[in-house]
Amino acid sequence: MNCIFCEIVSGRSDASVVHEDENVMAFMDIRPWTSGHLLVVPKRHASGLADLDPGDGAAVFAVGQRLATALRHGPMRAQGVNLFLADGIAAGQEVFHVHLHVVPRTAGDGFGLRGMPKSPSRIALDQTAGVIRSSL
Amino acid sequence: MNCIFCEIVSGRSDASVVHEDENVMAFMDIRPWTSGHLLVVPKRHASGLADLDPGDGAAVFAVGQRLATALRHGPMRAQGVNLFLADGIAAGQEVFHVHLHVVPRTAGDGFGLRGMPKSPSRIALDQTAGVIRSSL
Repeated sequence: MNCIFCEIVSGRSDASVVHEDENVMAFMDIRPWTSGHLLVVPKRHASGLADLDPGDGAAVFAVGQRLATALRHGPMRAQGVNLFLADGIAAGQEVFHVHLHVVPRTAGDGFGLRGMPKSPSRIALDQTAGVIRSSL
Repeated sequence: MNCIFCEIVSGRSDASVVHEDENVMAFMDIRPWTSGHLLVVPKRHASGLADLDPGDGAAVFAVGQRLATALRHGPMRAQGVNLFLADGIAAGQEVFHVHLHVVPRTAGDGFGLRGMPKSPSRIALDQTAGVIRSSL
Protein backbone atom coordinates (compact mmCIF):
# COMPACT_ATOMS: atom_id res chain seq x y z
CA MET A 1 0.00 0.00 0.00
CA ASN A 2 3.01 2.32 0.22
CA CYS A 3 2.98 4.29 -3.03
CA ILE A 4 5.63 6.99 -3.05
CA PHE A 5 3.66 9.15 -5.51
CA CYS A 6 0.48 8.86 -3.41
CA GLU A 7 2.60 10.02 -0.46
CA ILE A 8 3.67 13.08 -2.46
CA VAL A 9 0.12 13.79 -3.68
CA SER A 10 -1.16 13.66 -0.09
CA GLY A 11 1.63 15.95 1.16
CA ARG A 12 3.13 13.30 3.44
CA SER A 13 6.37 13.23 1.38
CA ASP A 14 8.40 16.16 0.09
CA ALA A 15 8.57 17.06 -3.57
CA SER A 16 9.62 20.05 -5.64
CA VAL A 17 6.20 20.81 -7.11
CA VAL A 18 5.74 22.87 -10.27
CA HIS A 19 2.02 22.35 -10.88
CA GLU A 20 -1.02 21.14 -8.99
CA ASP A 21 -4.68 21.12 -9.92
CA GLU A 22 -7.72 19.06 -8.96
CA ASN A 23 -6.59 15.93 -10.81
CA VAL A 24 -2.89 16.22 -11.58
CA MET A 25 0.40 17.01 -9.88
CA ALA A 26 3.79 17.70 -11.50
CA PHE A 27 7.10 17.71 -9.64
CA MET A 28 10.84 17.30 -10.23
CA ASP A 29 12.17 13.77 -10.75
CA ILE A 30 14.71 13.22 -7.95
CA ARG A 31 16.86 11.15 -10.37
CA PRO A 32 16.77 13.47 -13.41
CA TRP A 33 17.97 12.29 -16.82
CA THR A 34 18.56 15.97 -17.69
CA SER A 35 18.24 19.17 -15.66
CA GLY A 36 14.55 20.08 -15.39
CA HIS A 37 13.25 16.49 -15.75
CA LEU A 38 9.66 16.49 -14.47
CA LEU A 39 7.06 13.84 -13.63
CA VAL A 40 3.35 14.37 -14.18
CA VAL A 41 1.04 12.08 -12.19
CA PRO A 42 -2.70 11.67 -11.75
CA LYS A 43 -3.69 12.32 -8.12
CA ARG A 44 -5.97 9.31 -8.19
CA HIS A 45 -3.84 6.17 -7.95
CA ALA A 46 -3.55 3.99 -11.05
CA SER A 47 -0.77 1.45 -11.44
CA GLY A 48 -0.61 1.59 -15.23
CA LEU A 49 -2.41 2.55 -18.44
CA ALA A 50 -4.92 -0.30 -18.14
CA ASP A 51 -6.42 1.02 -14.89
CA LEU A 52 -5.88 4.74 -15.57
CA ASP A 53 -9.11 6.73 -15.88
CA PRO A 54 -9.08 8.09 -19.48
CA GLY A 55 -10.01 11.55 -18.22
CA ASP A 56 -7.06 11.49 -15.84
CA GLY A 57 -4.84 10.36 -18.73
CA ALA A 58 -5.97 13.27 -20.88
CA ALA A 59 -5.37 15.67 -17.97
CA VAL A 60 -1.86 14.28 -17.41
CA PHE A 61 -1.00 14.72 -21.09
CA ALA A 62 -2.42 18.25 -21.15
CA VAL A 63 -0.19 19.25 -18.23
CA GLY A 64 2.78 17.55 -19.93
CA GLN A 65 2.11 19.59 -23.06
CA ARG A 66 1.96 22.84 -21.06
CA LEU A 67 5.17 21.98 -19.21
CA ALA A 68 6.97 21.12 -22.45
CA THR A 69 6.03 24.47 -23.92
CA ALA A 70 7.16 26.25 -20.73
CA LEU A 71 10.50 24.41 -20.77
CA ARG A 72 11.15 25.39 -24.38
CA HIS A 73 9.90 28.95 -24.35
CA GLY A 74 10.58 30.00 -20.74
CA PRO A 75 13.86 30.65 -18.89
CA MET A 76 14.88 26.96 -19.02
CA ARG A 77 15.49 27.48 -22.76
CA ALA A 78 15.30 23.77 -23.64
CA GLN A 79 15.99 23.09 -27.31
CA GLY A 80 13.57 20.17 -27.30
CA VAL A 81 11.48 18.00 -24.98
CA ASN A 82 10.76 14.29 -24.76
CA LEU A 83 7.60 12.89 -23.23
CA PHE A 84 8.07 9.31 -22.03
CA LEU A 85 5.87 6.84 -20.20
CA ALA A 86 6.79 3.31 -19.14
CA ASP A 87 3.94 0.84 -18.65
CA GLY A 88 5.12 -2.43 -17.14
CA ILE A 89 8.44 -3.76 -15.83
CA ALA A 90 9.52 -4.82 -19.34
CA ALA A 91 9.09 -1.18 -20.41
CA GLY A 92 11.23 0.12 -17.54
CA GLN A 93 8.45 1.12 -15.12
CA GLU A 94 9.84 1.34 -11.58
CA VAL A 95 7.08 3.14 -9.66
CA PHE A 96 3.64 1.60 -10.09
CA HIS A 97 1.70 4.82 -10.09
CA VAL A 98 1.32 6.11 -13.67
CA HIS A 99 3.76 8.94 -14.44
CA LEU A 100 4.62 10.88 -17.57
CA HIS A 101 8.26 11.95 -17.83
CA VAL A 102 8.82 15.43 -19.29
CA VAL A 103 12.51 15.65 -20.23
CA PRO A 104 14.08 18.91 -21.45
CA ARG A 105 16.69 18.32 -24.13
CA THR A 106 19.73 20.15 -25.41
CA ALA A 107 22.11 19.07 -28.17
CA GLY A 108 24.75 16.69 -26.83
CA ASP A 109 23.07 16.06 -23.45
CA GLY A 110 23.74 12.31 -23.73
CA PHE A 111 20.11 11.30 -23.27
CA GLY A 112 18.25 9.38 -25.94
CA LEU A 113 16.97 6.05 -27.15
CA ARG A 114 18.93 2.93 -27.92
CA GLY A 115 17.84 0.31 -30.40
CA MET A 116 18.03 -0.32 -34.11
CA PRO A 117 14.90 0.27 -36.18
CA LYS A 118 13.91 -2.48 -38.62
CA SER A 119 12.43 -2.10 -42.13
CA PRO A 120 9.64 -4.67 -42.46
CA SER A 121 7.71 -5.08 -45.71
CA ARG A 122 4.30 -3.45 -46.19
CA ILE A 123 2.79 -6.96 -46.15
CA ALA A 124 4.33 -7.65 -42.73
CA LEU A 125 3.18 -4.24 -41.42
CA ASP A 126 -0.36 -4.85 -42.71
CA GLN A 127 -0.45 -8.25 -41.00
CA THR A 128 0.65 -6.77 -37.67
CA ALA A 129 -1.86 -3.92 -38.07
CA GLY A 130 -4.60 -6.50 -38.58
CA VAL A 131 -3.67 -8.33 -35.39
CA ILE A 132 -3.70 -5.09 -33.39
CA ARG A 133 -6.98 -3.89 -34.95
CA SER A 134 -8.63 -7.15 -33.94
CA SER A 135 -7.89 -6.43 -30.28
CA LEU A 136 -9.21 -2.86 -30.20
CA MET B 1 4.28 21.96 -47.47
CA ASN B 2 4.87 18.24 -48.03
CA CYS B 3 4.03 16.61 -44.71
CA ILE B 4 4.21 12.82 -44.94
CA PHE B 5 1.71 12.36 -42.10
CA CYS B 6 -0.78 14.78 -43.70
CA GLU B 7 -0.41 12.68 -46.86
CA ILE B 8 -1.33 9.57 -44.87
CA VAL B 9 -4.24 11.30 -43.11
CA SER B 10 -5.64 12.44 -46.47
CA GLY B 11 -5.26 8.95 -47.97
CA ARG B 12 -2.75 10.07 -50.59
CA SER B 13 -0.02 7.88 -49.06
CA ASP B 14 -0.25 4.28 -47.92
CA ALA B 15 -0.17 3.28 -44.30
CA SER B 16 -1.05 0.23 -42.23
CA VAL B 17 -3.84 1.82 -40.23
CA VAL B 18 -5.07 0.40 -36.93
CA HIS B 19 -7.38 3.20 -35.78
CA GLU B 20 -9.12 6.21 -37.26
CA ASP B 21 -11.67 8.60 -35.79
CA GLU B 22 -12.69 12.20 -36.42
CA ASN B 23 -9.52 13.70 -34.93
CA VAL B 24 -6.87 11.01 -34.71
CA MET B 25 -5.22 8.34 -36.84
CA ALA B 26 -2.92 5.50 -35.71
CA PHE B 27 -0.77 3.41 -38.04
CA MET B 28 2.34 1.23 -38.04
CA ASP B 29 5.73 2.97 -37.94
CA ILE B 30 7.55 1.88 -41.11
CA ARG B 31 10.87 1.88 -39.15
CA PRO B 32 9.74 0.03 -36.01
CA TRP B 33 11.91 -0.07 -32.89
CA THR B 34 10.05 -3.26 -31.92
CA SER B 35 7.40 -5.33 -33.69
CA GLY B 36 4.05 -3.58 -33.35
CA HIS B 37 5.48 -0.05 -33.00
CA LEU B 38 2.65 2.39 -33.74
CA LEU B 39 2.35 6.12 -34.32
CA VAL B 40 -0.66 8.14 -33.20
CA VAL B 41 -1.15 11.49 -34.93
CA PRO B 42 -3.71 14.30 -34.83
CA LYS B 43 -5.41 14.67 -38.22
CA ARG B 44 -5.11 18.43 -37.98
CA HIS B 45 -1.50 19.40 -38.73
CA ALA B 46 0.61 20.65 -35.83
CA SER B 47 4.39 20.71 -36.00
CA GLY B 48 4.98 20.29 -32.27
CA LEU B 49 3.51 20.57 -28.80
CA ALA B 50 3.49 24.38 -28.87
CA ASP B 51 1.02 24.55 -31.78
CA LEU B 52 -0.93 21.37 -30.97
CA ASP B 53 -4.56 21.98 -30.07
CA PRO B 54 -4.90 20.72 -26.45
CA GLY B 55 -8.06 18.82 -27.34
CA ASP B 56 -6.19 17.07 -30.15
CA GLY B 57 -3.38 16.28 -27.70
CA ALA B 58 -5.81 14.72 -25.24
CA ALA B 59 -7.37 12.69 -28.07
CA VAL B 60 -3.95 11.45 -29.22
CA PHE B 61 -3.05 10.35 -25.69
CA ALA B 62 -6.42 8.62 -25.22
CA VAL B 63 -5.86 6.57 -28.39
CA GLY B 64 -2.30 5.80 -27.26
CA GLN B 65 -3.66 4.54 -23.95
CA ARG B 66 -6.22 2.30 -25.71
CA LEU B 67 -3.55 0.94 -28.07
CA ALA B 68 -1.18 0.22 -25.19
CA THR B 69 -3.86 -1.76 -23.40
CA ALA B 70 -4.67 -3.65 -26.61
CA LEU B 71 -0.98 -4.47 -27.18
CA ARG B 72 -0.60 -5.84 -23.65
CA HIS B 73 -3.87 -7.68 -23.29
CA GLY B 74 -4.62 -8.72 -26.89
CA PRO B 75 -2.90 -11.25 -29.17
CA MET B 76 0.30 -9.16 -29.41
CA ARG B 77 0.96 -10.17 -25.79
CA ALA B 78 3.39 -7.32 -25.12
CA GLN B 79 4.91 -7.47 -21.63
CA GLY B 80 5.05 -3.67 -21.45
CA VAL B 81 4.58 -0.55 -23.55
CA ASN B 82 6.46 2.72 -23.87
CA LEU B 83 4.82 5.94 -24.98
CA PHE B 84 7.33 8.39 -26.44
CA LEU B 85 7.06 11.80 -28.05
CA ALA B 86 9.90 13.91 -29.44
CA ASP B 87 9.36 17.66 -29.64
CA GLY B 88 12.16 19.44 -31.50
CA ILE B 89 15.28 18.31 -33.36
CA ALA B 90 17.30 18.20 -30.11
CA ALA B 91 14.75 15.69 -28.78
CA GLY B 92 15.04 13.47 -31.86
CA GLN B 93 11.97 14.69 -33.77
CA GLU B 94 12.30 13.80 -37.46
CA VAL B 95 8.79 14.37 -38.85
CA PHE B 96 7.35 17.78 -38.01
CA HIS B 97 3.79 16.63 -37.52
CA VAL B 98 3.20 15.71 -33.86
CA HIS B 99 3.25 11.95 -33.30
CA LEU B 100 3.09 9.74 -30.23
CA HIS B 101 5.12 6.52 -30.46
CA VAL B 102 3.46 3.45 -28.91
CA VAL B 103 6.17 0.81 -28.52
CA PRO B 104 5.38 -2.74 -27.37
CA ARG B 105 8.09 -4.17 -25.15
CA THR B 106 9.32 -7.62 -24.23
CA ALA B 107 12.20 -8.52 -21.93
CA GLY B 108 15.52 -8.41 -23.79
CA ASP B 109 14.18 -6.63 -26.90
CA GLY B 110 17.19 -4.27 -26.95
CA PHE B 111 15.11 -1.09 -26.91
CA GLY B 112 15.38 1.42 -24.10
CA LEU B 113 16.81 4.69 -22.89
CA ARG B 114 20.42 5.69 -22.59
CA GLY B 115 21.72 8.25 -20.14
CA MET B 116 22.84 8.37 -16.53
CA PRO B 117 20.46 9.88 -13.99
CA LYS B 118 21.91 12.45 -11.59
CA SER B 119 21.07 12.94 -7.90
CA PRO B 120 20.76 16.69 -7.30
CA SER B 121 20.09 18.06 -3.82
CA ARG B 122 16.59 19.06 -2.73
CA ILE B 123 17.76 22.68 -2.75
CA ALA B 124 18.83 22.39 -6.38
CA LEU B 125 15.56 20.67 -7.32
CA ASP B 126 13.54 23.37 -5.56
CA GLN B 127 15.45 26.09 -7.41
CA THR B 128 14.80 24.45 -10.79
CA ALA B 129 11.13 23.94 -9.86
CA GLY B 130 10.87 27.65 -9.08
CA VAL B 131 12.30 28.60 -12.47
CA ILE B 132 9.83 26.30 -14.26
CA ARG B 133 6.85 27.46 -12.16
CA SER B 134 7.63 31.05 -13.08
CA SER B 135 7.17 30.24 -16.77
CA LEU B 136 3.83 28.42 -16.47
